[in-house]
Amino acid sequence: MDIDLYINTLGRQARAASRAMATASSAQKNAALRHIAENIRQQAEALKAANQQDLAQAQKNGLEPALLDRLTLSDQAIATMAEGLEQIAALPDPIGEITQLRRRPSGIQVGQMRVPLGVIGIIYEARPNVTVDAAGLCIKSGNATILRGGSEALHCNQALALLVKQGLASAGLPDHAVQVIETTDRAAVGALITLTEFVDVIVPRGGKGLIERISREARVPVIKHLDGICHVYIDDKADLDKAIRIADNAKTHRYGTCNTMETLLVHRHIATQVLPPLAKIYQEKGVELRGCAATQGVLTGIKSAQEADWHTEYLAPILSIKIVHDLDAAITHINHYSSQHTDAIVTEDYTRALRFLREVDSASVMVNASTRFADGFEYGLGAEIGISTDKIHARGPVGLEGLTSMKYVVLGNGEIRQ
Amino acid sequence: MDIDLYINTLGRQARAASRAMATASSAQKNAALRHIAENIRQQAEALKAANQQDLAQAQKNGLEPALLDRLTLSDQAIATMAEGLEQIAALPDPIGEITQLRRRPSGIQVGQMRVPLGVIGIIYEARPNVTVDAAGLCIKSGNATILRGGSEALHCNQALALLVKQGLASAGLPDHAVQVIETTDRAAVGALITLTEFVDVIVPRGGKGLIERISREARVPVIKHLDGICHVYIDDKADLDKAIRIADNAKTHRYGTCNTMETLLVHRHIATQVLPPLAKIYQEKGVELRGCAATQGVLTGIKSAQEADWHTEYLAPILSIKIVHDLDAAITHINHYSSQHTDAIVTEDYTRALRFLREVDSASVMVNASTRFADGFEYGLGAEIGISTDKIHARGPVGLEGLTSMKYVVLGNGEIRQ
Repeated sequence: MDIDLYINTLGRQARAASRAMATASSAQKNAALRHIAENIRQQAEALKAANQQDLAQAQKNGLEPALLDRLTLSDQAIATMAEGLEQIAALPDPIGEITQLRRRPSGIQVGQMRVPLGVIGIIYEARPNVTVDAAGLCIKSGNATILRGGSEALHCNQALALLVKQGLASAGLPDHAVQVIETTDRAAVGALITLTEFVDVIVPRGGKGLIERISREARVPVIKHLDGICHVYIDDKADLDKAIRIADNAKTHRYGTCNTMETLLVHRHIATQVLPPLAKIYQEKGVELRGCAATQGVLTGIKSAQEADWHTEYLAPILSIKIVHDLDAAITHINHYSSQHTDAIVTEDYTRALRFLREVDSASVMVNASTRFADGFEYGLGAEIGISTDKIHARGPVGLEGLTSMKYVVLGNGEIRQ
Repeated sequence: MDIDLYINTLGRQARAASRAMATASSAQKNAALRHIAENIRQQAEALKAANQQDLAQAQKNGLEPALLDRLTLSDQAIATMAEGLEQIAALPDPIGEITQLRRRPSGIQVGQMRVPLGVIGIIYEARPNVTVDAAGLCIKSGNATILRGGSEALHCNQALALLVKQGLASAGLPDHAVQVIETTDRAAVGALITLTEFVDVIVPRGGKGLIERISREARVPVIKHLDGICHVYIDDKADLDKAIRIADNAKTHRYGTCNTMETLLVHRHIATQVLPPLAKIYQEKGVELRGCAATQGVLTGIKSAQEADWHTEYLAPILSIKIVHDLDAAITHINHYSSQHTDAIVTEDYTRALRFLREVDSASVMVNASTRFADGFEYGLGAEIGISTDKIHARGPVGLEGLTSMKYVVLGNGEIRQ
């Protein structure tokens, strides 16, 4: 198979389908989503059978238990996929909205219209539900999609893609609005992420290795985050009860998520008050603590934190702790070590809260709330395609709007430049 | 000189300066802009002397008259530079604005704050005024800048950069907020556009060759347009007086700008009515016409338009003309050949106007107005860093907001995820 030709063809077909998707009515798109949801429920047994095929193969290939677990399509996962589509269908349609239509001195009226980006490439590992979640968001936002799932979920992804296409057809939407890359050849990824002629944005969902490779080689813009090295800074003007609750939740609510706190910063004046009770909570939950020298002075017996610890996203019950001189030192540490994902301050001081909000250069900056709130649904976006730590186009949790752009529309009455 | 080390140092210094720029007050930034404007007026003779040095060298190097002309810093250009800075100073400050601060069911309040991108790399050819215009926009939007001008304007750019730095210093802003690449070595450009660690966006200003090279090699995001292949489509439901005025202005107002019409599309039903009077106007102004076969049938004696003509941005008094079957054919032609810059329809039909606005996939889409209006000042942005034909981040004329990003801010009261 000529991979470049194959991917080029998918791209050309996607671009053609994107014209129809851009003008599809809200009713059509919502009908497609609801039909796909119905198909998924009705075909649950067939989906699980396809999933079993993948699991059997994966076990033969020696895949680790944690990854086998992620690969499994449970009844719950199937129900969640279907419900997720219905929730997307219930969201307002962002496409076509015209805002700020202002009259200019020249007489023309200038505004901005929200339109789909066009063609979205989704590259993902393991989780079969991404096939449906991502396709659903792209359909709702009037985009055409090219999907490349993990080879370990091949049969399940193919089965899901078929249900998606049936749903599209029943709503009168073009078949090429959602296409799946059928080959497992790695070169297909390289071809997709450099297909600037037909693909408008790439969304990678998976481990750091995948995202690093794609970021390095892509010519098409990428919406991504690499790391979630998030901080909570407990100021000496903090309400210590809030601080303990937040620092507990930000670390222990879930260990493997990108908005989990990985480093705790504590103002030197309240370190001896707040660290012992916090350490007790962490240790009861089995969290390994690593501290700077000053921290080790307060929490005797904990491990020493090295320079590498401030740069590490543990994705595990491990937490690095640093006692800092003051707010300035906390902000400096965060702006240096943070992956610019999510960082929070706990304080009752108005001026310090505003300074932190203004000066921390991250996608989400918080006062007196757990970093675990950095999430599209928690923010009210109604959906989440991913989280971006880049500053261009979309920053932080990315919802439907991240899959759109604004073009200028001008309403004239025959005006010409003088 | 170790170019990579040199550029890396500029980047590191710019990143450090960007922290101070991000929190600079509006008063400081405006004071800097006004001081720079004053410096420019006071140092006009010194600037012209530096410019003479460049011009003498350029003439020795055999630079063409048109380019020598672009290189020249006239009294008018000096006055315009200073006024431009004062206009930027008078604009509202976009930085720090928080919008849509909504309370969520969880209790947290979530909004978005407008903040500078951070470090902007401006790469430009010839025109010395870009040194000041671009630096001014970056200062106003709270960014640090690294400037790389054309080698042919080296002395002038250096003299202007010195005035900029003096203005910054007088307002208490960091010296490294604006830095100029002092070497003319081409490798410096390659180093800058791949310096993802310290540079947030690149803005190239110049000819297609420069922009193509930068787009191809950059790892840092680029705000750019490559081509300005713009269309005017005269519908059979057009007011023909408006159509003639607009088609004339869109072509002949200025030939060398990116929003100049390069191809005229005419509905077959009114071709014989509208083309002869238009052709007369064009020919009186010395515009060479090239037409499809049907057009040649109406305007006998004009040259034949080849496939390449539909793909060409002439930047000259040349116009290609095509008679199309209907609105569908016009939209198809535009979505295929347009550089997605600016495209306009002339019609009095409501449904067709809305279809055109919705279906043409360009940065600016117009009804009954000249394409020459696609301009930051005409749109009311108060400034223009450039025009983007990309769909990511900024689309169409890019003002101050294009040099900013939105980060999420969360105001809590101790909330944690359940």
